[in-house]
Amino acid sequence: MTSSTPSTPASGTAPKAAPKDPWDLPDVSGLVVGVLGGTGDQGRGLAYRLAKAGQKVIIGSRAADRAQGAAEEIGHGVEGADNADCARRSDIVIVAVPWDGHAKTLESLREELAGKLVVDCVNPLGFDKKGAYALKPEEGSAAEQAAALLPDSRVAAAFHHLSAVLLQDTSLEEIDTDVMVLGEERADVELVQALAGRIPGMRGVFAGRLRNAHQVESLVANLISVNRRYKAHAGLRVTDI
Amino acid sequence: MTSSTPSTPASGTAPKAAPKDPWDLPDVSGLVVGVLGGTGDQGRGLAYRLAKAGQKVIIGSRAADRAQGAAEEIGHGVEGADNADCARRSDIVIVAVPWDGHAKTLESLREELAGKLVVDCVNPLGFDKKGAYALKPEEGSAAEQAAALLPDSRVAAAFHHLSAVLLQDTSLEEIDTDVMVLGEERADVELVQALAGRIPGMRGVFAGRLRNAHQVESLVANLISVNRRYKAHAGLRVTDI
Repeated sequence: MTSSTPSTPASGTAPKAAPKDPWDLPDVSGLVVGVLGGTGDQGRGLAYRLAKAGQKVIIGSRAADRAQGAAEEIGHGVEGADNADCARRSDIVIVAVPWDGHAKTLESLREELAGKLVVDCVNPLGFDKKGAYALKPEEGSAAEQAAALLPDSRVAAAFHHLSAVLLQDTSLEEIDTDVMVLGEERADVELVQALAGRIPGMRGVFAGRLRNAHQVESLVANLISVNRRYKAHAGLRVTDI
Repeated sequence: MTSSTPSTPASGTAPKAAPKDPWDLPDVSGLVVGVLGGTGDQGRGLAYRLAKAGQKVIIGSRAADRAQGAAEEIGHGVEGADNADCARRSDIVIVAVPWDGHAKTLESLREELAGKLVVDCVNPLGFDKKGAYALKPEEGSAAEQAAALLPDSRVAAAFHHLSAVLLQDTSLEEIDTDVMVLGEERADVELVQALAGRIPGMRGVFAGRLRNAHQVESLVANLISVNRRYKAHAGLRVTDI
């Protein structure tokens, strides 16, 4: 995590700019974070962790009163609103709805999400008696579906591998895991990385473009197998960084 | 990693067997390990680490003399042979050939691999100017292609996320990473887990059935993005286990 040293230009070529330190991330503490599907386990857990870290969080649900009820339970200044209001009032909007309602929810919020940074954390999975397995959305991944449905938003993908159980466990001060962040624009990816980094124990790590989101979303099927075998709430760390 | 305690049977039901400790793995120190494609970077690195850990290793290549040359360079008692001889003489055979030659190599070794445990570590990837991206084999994954082509072998998948650079770095005593192991039969998965665990710093972790191998293979595209951004040789740790 040290700063990079300036490169020495080869003779006859223009001096190259020093590569940017990948750990030099923006200050996101003043941004309002919305969580669509914020009354579900994943959404509640993320809202709790971010609000506890000092972020202003609004959770969205189809029914405003359900969102308000969940927000009160979470505490830490979290507000509840219907999805449209949540999207409108937020700077960054995390999509934590069930895969079943993913496309429909996003389509209905196209206007409210225009101009916003949308962070998809949905894992398209199927389940049968052998456990979980990956579903492949027509667009390639949930994140790419979001990008296709929201042409006026900026879409990133992150927060796929977090255990909702650990996120919601108020006895845990830290969550020992990395958050893989995918996206097309470096500035947007860095906002999401910085947001993940606000939660004690987490790092946001750039892990590729949206075309490589499918395997990150699908890997949750493997973590479910890990959880069954080891009675765990598995997450991931990226080593050597 | 503690042993599981016996469960208390509910009244009126048959007593349930205590769940098996998932960390109770077999002794594999006496098994001969073959590495097909053992002259490539991944194969050489794996052969070096396993042999250094005390495993008997034979590397295979299309040309026996090339395999013998590489084996001499690796040392630690590694032997070289042509692929067929390597397969024939080994108890566990790791497939570390390039994706391009995967199907053809396995088809040509069907007889030699019959009755063996075959461990596929091939990552089907494409590359363009935007970096690496996942290829989806018709069978679902490289491992499922191996299973389809080798009906008389037992197929597992593992060793996908190891940096060939770190594996081959003789100054490193430990490799700080987990190995996700996938397969259909618990006994086979445990053999591979135990094999991974022979290398200092590594744990072999069960991570699902072969139908969930695609995302594990493809995740290497994401790790390549990590490596570019962070100048790293990224690997993975599974947390909470």
